[in-house]
Amino acid sequence: MDVSTALLDRLFGDGLLFPTGIDGLYLRSERFERIVDALDAFIGRRGAADAPEVLRFPPAMPRDALVRSGYLGSFPQLLGTVHCFAGDDADHRRMLRQADVKEDWTGWQRASNLVLTPASCYPLYPVIAARGPLPEQGGIYDLHSWCFRHEPSQDPVRMQTFRVREFVRMGRKEHVLAFRQTWMERAQEIIRDLALPGTIDRANDPFFGRSGRLMAESQREQGLKYELLVPIHGEARPTACMSFNYHLNHFGEAWQIGLPDGGQAYSGCVGFGLERLALALFCFHGLDTATWPSGVRKALRLDA
Amino acid sequence: MDVSTALLDRLFGDGLLFPTGIDGLYLRSERFERIVDALDAFIGRRGAADAPEVLRFPPAMPRDALVRSGYLGSFPQLLGTVHCFAGDDADHRRMLRQADVKEDWTGWQRASNLVLTPASCYPLYPVIAARGPLPEQGGIYDLHSWCFRHEPSQDPVRMQTFRVREFVRMGRKEHVLAFRQTWMERAQEIIRDLALPGTIDRANDPFFGRSGRLMAESQREQGLKYELLVPIHGEARPTACMSFNYHLNHFGEAWQIGLPDGGQAYSGCVGFGLERLALALFCFHGLDTATWPSGVRKALRLDA
Repeated sequence: MDVSTALLDRLFGDGLLFPTGIDGLYLRSERFERIVDALDAFIGRRGAADAPEVLRFPPAMPRDALVRSGYLGSFPQLLGTVHCFAGDDADHRRMLRQADVKEDWTGWQRASNLVLTPASCYPLYPVIAARGPLPEQGGIYDLHSWCFRHEPSQDPVRMQTFRVREFVRMGRKEHVLAFRQTWMERAQEIIRDLALPGTIDRANDPFFGRSGRLMAESQREQGLKYELLVPIHGEARPTACMSFNYHLNHFGEAWQIGLPDGGQAYSGCVGFGLERLALALFCFHGLDTATWPSGVRKALRLDA
Repeated sequence: MDVSTALLDRLFGDGLLFPTGIDGLYLRSERFERIVDALDAFIGRRGAADAPEVLRFPPAMPRDALVRSGYLGSFPQLLGTVHCFAGDDADHRRMLRQADVKEDWTGWQRASNLVLTPASCYPLYPVIAARGPLPEQGGIYDLHSWCFRHEPSQDPVRMQTFRVREFVRMGRKEHVLAFRQTWMERAQEIIRDLALPGTIDRANDPFFGRSGRLMAESQREQGLKYELLVPIHGEARPTACMSFNYHLNHFGEAWQIGLPDGGQAYSGCVGFGLERLALALFCFHGLDTATWPSGVRKALRLDA
């Protein structure tokens, strides 16, 4: 049994998470959720310094909007589309007969106009585009969403459904790069407050297929993505718990989001994987939160 | 324009919710979310008296588990199945070409083993079943989940994605009926604390098709479902904001959840539609929460 499967067994055995029979899909205990909520609030207090606009999104978003943002070209393997039944009584009877004898009944399902949100910031861009050109100082947004990525795994740090707290910066190139730099510095403080080991390194997204390898190389070369890595499974295979992304003007172009003096907006985001950070805390400080270092308990306001 | 569409326009115009272009799918402002969170905590304080086990679920659950619970027979029209891409590089190129020319590219998607959670309690039953027979006193569970129901509507109180706080009771018939009675009394206090008009009435679920009509009639005759109705759109078409459900031994039988002295467990649940309750508050007390009645602000701890 490898180190990640062993960890999952320990989390199930301790009642921190509960299995559903599906890899990467778990139910959460009160103890686990309390830490996720505390982390979310803790990160929110750091972000509040920028007076961001707070927006909250449901776990699904319009299919067309995700296509327009280019997701289908880059990450088709991770996407979940939502399909629904549109049949009549007779179709329903046929579908139920198939389900009764364990045949595949999903052929009755038709694609709806919804997909599962794969990252907290995708639903944002159409909202901003609808408002017209950005103001002179650009915009800063505080987001939170359940995200879905189809990558079943027995490694508990690679869930299919998980929450990401995100801060997005839109505006000029220099706005975005300064914002990202600020958050990379805050990230070092955050990880120190949480008494976790972690280092920031260049990274790339898991672009699909052969052409995806080139995209990944280019992303690394241009320094578009950095991650804060925590050695949950050891130094040889560290886990990305935060990411710091510079999108160039990709979303500004896709959504025609203008700058006040013309040209298209640049954007960037910083994302915090709340389940991953919670698991990092449980792994490094133990499954009993009462015995966590007092500084960590204080930072997370666990005694409040 | 009917009363519900007019309300939606007012919520968009005020910036309380944001449109996505899809009926029943909205982004949430900070002001709206603050009330949802406050309601969730307020309801949680009432439920804490029963010392329930707290469990939290992601917005997706195993497809097979929902089928085993009988959902496909009763509500196929509301279900969302999650489909994913399993093609190779060549398939991906074909899919992208279709998307580029606005053809339907979703034919490449294959049903995964996941569905969107349609009600907060469905993921619970397999977890309880896995623990073996219930203890003598049965069990009480405090749940919360994003739920999905495919019923696109321009009425803001009928969303496709929404949150439901639920309390579930499992055990003997008398455990379940007493629990439901207690919560129907608490519901009257809750609605009074929130200064909302509301009445409890018999109800039925929206069972599918011709045979569904008989199921709905039977449910009403047996008094299995009650709803707390708030006249958000007027007395003629009140909105269910809470429901009080007795499942008989439906889930005990489906999941073979036993009682300590043999026989199958009975169950019931009470559900709180958090978005609906929030909208009721905004409709009756105004869009500016600062001017809400002081008793309501106090109950929701908005000044804390």
